[in-house]
Amino acid sequence: MRVYDIIVKKRNGGTHTYEEITEIVSGYAGGKVPDYQVSAWLMACFLNGLDREETFYLTKAMLLSGRSIDLSGLPGPRVDKHSTGGVGDKISLILAPAVAACGVFVPMMSGRGLGFTGGTLDKLESIPGFNVRLSDEKFFEALQEAGYAMIGQSEDIAPADKLLYSLRDVTGTVESIPLITSSILSKKLAEGADAVVMDVKFGSGAFMKSKKDAEALASSLVDTAQKMGKRVICILTSMDQPLGREVGNALEVEESVAALQGAGEPDVVEITAVLGGHMLLAAEAAESFEEGRDRIIEKLNSGEAYERFRMSVKLQGGDVDTVTDTSKLPKAGRKKDILSKKSGYVNAIGTEDIGTASVFIGAGRFKKEDRVDPAVGITVEKKIGDHVEKGEPLAVLHYNESAWLEKAEGLIQNAYTIETEKRGEFRLVHETIQ
Amino acid sequence: MRVYDIIVKKRNGGTHTYEEITEIVSGYAGGKVPDYQVSAWLMACFLNGLDREETFYLTKAMLLSGRSIDLSGLPGPRVDKHSTGGVGDKISLILAPAVAACGVFVPMMSGRGLGFTGGTLDKLESIPGFNVRLSDEKFFEALQEAGYAMIGQSEDIAPADKLLYSLRDVTGTVESIPLITSSILSKKLAEGADAVVMDVKFGSGAFMKSKKDAEALASSLVDTAQKMGKRVICILTSMDQPLGREVGNALEVEESVAALQGAGEPDVVEITAVLGGHMLLAAEAAESFEEGRDRIIEKLNSGEAYERFRMSVKLQGGDVDTVTDTSKLPKAGRKKDILSKKSGYVNAIGTEDIGTASVFIGAGRFKKEDRVDPAVGITVEKKIGDHVEKGEPLAVLHYNESAWLEKAEGLIQNAYTIETEKRGEFRLVHETIQ
Repeated sequence: MRVYDIIVKKRNGGTHTYEEITEIVSGYAGGKVPDYQVSAWLMACFLNGLDREETFYLTKAMLLSGRSIDLSGLPGPRVDKHSTGGVGDKISLILAPAVAACGVFVPMMSGRGLGFTGGTLDKLESIPGFNVRLSDEKFFEALQEAGYAMIGQSEDIAPADKLLYSLRDVTGTVESIPLITSSILSKKLAEGADAVVMDVKFGSGAFMKSKKDAEALASSLVDTAQKMGKRVICILTSMDQPLGREVGNALEVEESVAALQGAGEPDVVEITAVLGGHMLLAAEAAESFEEGRDRIIEKLNSGEAYERFRMSVKLQGGDVDTVTDTSKLPKAGRKKDILSKKSGYVNAIGTEDIGTASVFIGAGRFKKEDRVDPAVGITVEKKIGDHVEKGEPLAVLHYNESAWLEKAEGLIQNAYTIETEKRGEFRLVHETIQ
Repeated sequence: MRVYDIIVKKRNGGTHTYEEITEIVSGYAGGKVPDYQVSAWLMACFLNGLDREETFYLTKAMLLSGRSIDLSGLPGPRVDKHSTGGVGDKISLILAPAVAACGVFVPMMSGRGLGFTGGTLDKLESIPGFNVRLSDEKFFEALQEAGYAMIGQSEDIAPADKLLYSLRDVTGTVESIPLITSSILSKKLAEGADAVVMDVKFGSGAFMKSKKDAEALASSLVDTAQKMGKRVICILTSMDQPLGREVGNALEVEESVAALQGAGEPDVVEITAVLGGHMLLAAEAAESFEEGRDRIIEKLNSGEAYERFRMSVKLQGGDVDTVTDTSKLPKAGRKKDILSKKSGYVNAIGTEDIGTASVFIGAGRFKKEDRVDPAVGITVEKKIGDHVEKGEPLAVLHYNESAWLEKAEGLIQNAYTIETEKRGEFRLVHETIQ
């Protein structure tokens, strides 16, 4: 079938065969199908949808556009974790060493921050010397020794997804559940894990603003992975306030180190334990979720997780001193308290605004090409349910350049909803879909 | 508004402002907006629609992307005709001189054949020497002298439409009533006519297969033109069989000359008279449609229309001898009768197949770059309602190259529905929408 006819078929609400999807995906990756045809097709997919079978075909075609990593040589189960992205989400840095300390291998490929969400690679790179680009051999060695390793995706993992994502990003075709599903899975399934636990976030600081959309994405991820012969467990968590207290790369490493030393913020520990519990259960390293969850907490409190972390930092070329004494991590030159303009209870935090404020001061990127300052960020002093007095700090800005300071301040002030009456409790972990 | 946000707005079913449409159209024509963004937007327009106001904005933006021709210096009313395209549609060649002979100027810009439909420019160019590329001055002079002139669209008429059409052609976004409306009108309204009579065709040999779609297009054309301050009158005609008997460029010129000499096929004369009647009424050169229609027939029978035709051929550099003695027009080297395989009544003709057969033997183009052979074509011997004996010719193929002869024969055989019982009558002219 010609590409033209494939576009018309989806435009008319038809259902694609695997051959049709491959024609577009391989053709585009091979430079034979022009971007203007692919973008018209993507818009038709966005508006007319792709069913579960088509989503599976697309995932498979994108996965097969590149290579997969074979980790069958590792002496134990391999489980990975993925987050759909949030604000202050440093969980991977704590979770991977904790799971590894329980004897389960965690081969993790992560991404960089874009827009209001941060990225694990940027956080790791705030540790001086830390190298996220390892050869397959070095990745395997690091995994074997520390039990986990964290790298960026190499160019040859699902290259079709990279191309399609870049096109979706400029043609208004990002927010589609089947397209998001195949983009996430085509990369994650190339990594050689037996199962993947996914933190599917919803709320003001997530891509999916509603719980309903997050449920739909989770269900699509679980089903599609199953068709691909892999197990995915999705945990729905609220991103209606920043996770932990720190937003910004070195600040989040510092907060992660505290958690790895048994002194984590309650929400950080909770989500780490829940995700880790599911990972251990999936790897058959625990007999129940509860047992798994308790083992993760134990590994954080015993210092074993922290030891794995230090080992991994060393294996990936990072300066271990900076994670032994976190005062040696990059620090911003200046601080500014953002003071509350009234007294009352914090009833909501516009978390995307907090993320965007951190990007304005240099902690993240608006465009892929933007440079990130590892030292800057935001400390969140008040969270949902807290009482605040007029004049008390809501947050602290750690900054080096003052060009966008006012903009960032405005966003933070705007993010806080402070009212006389305290509203209901914040609930972090919602349901599990598997 | 950024182009990205304009795409998202239409994707979400929003309604565009004039500024938004201009941003896309001028940006694309100016090389500032990339084709992959425009094609995603076109697909969103195709699927979510454009309302009448947006169609008007798009028409206006495309018209203003180029120049308009000023014909206000002509000493009389100016009316044009447009056809949405069909098989054997040589009406412009007969109609324009007949209307001109009634004292109404006809400035006509036409196109080339593509796919199963023929094009007026290709027909004219089968007259040796005929020049369809005139300067504005020569066009004006020819118009003044013969009362009509027929040229191709210059590059600077609605250039945005040319670009958008090329993109629609390869991205499955052609068959959209608002997009077709703005494409037709942006070109036609640049030509300097006061009113345009449009032959909106439907049926097996037209782009619009159903009468309902043709009605929707006609209504969109009339309304949008009115918003642009111009009058459009649409006549809905059936393209369920070829118009006249000849399909192919020189063959159609020959058939047109016969009609101009008062010896036209009944359907050719009927449609010419109906369109001409409406043109004369719109130009206030007749007091009623009936009076106008009768005057057209009179001009065909008196030879005055033919004289105008010869004058125009001469003014545009054509060899007048070939239209005085049509045996001097290019002739195909070989002929083949396509014989009926059974006896009965012709109840239907798959007219697109007849058009496609003519393209296979070289009378038209599958791709823009294809060369056309002026001499070749098809003579339709049997039309709807005719009785045919087994072994009698249904059609005659006039050809030079035999490479695709079998394919053409198969298409013609396949086009004819021959049954024992005679079905209802064929009706050519349906309603008028204005």
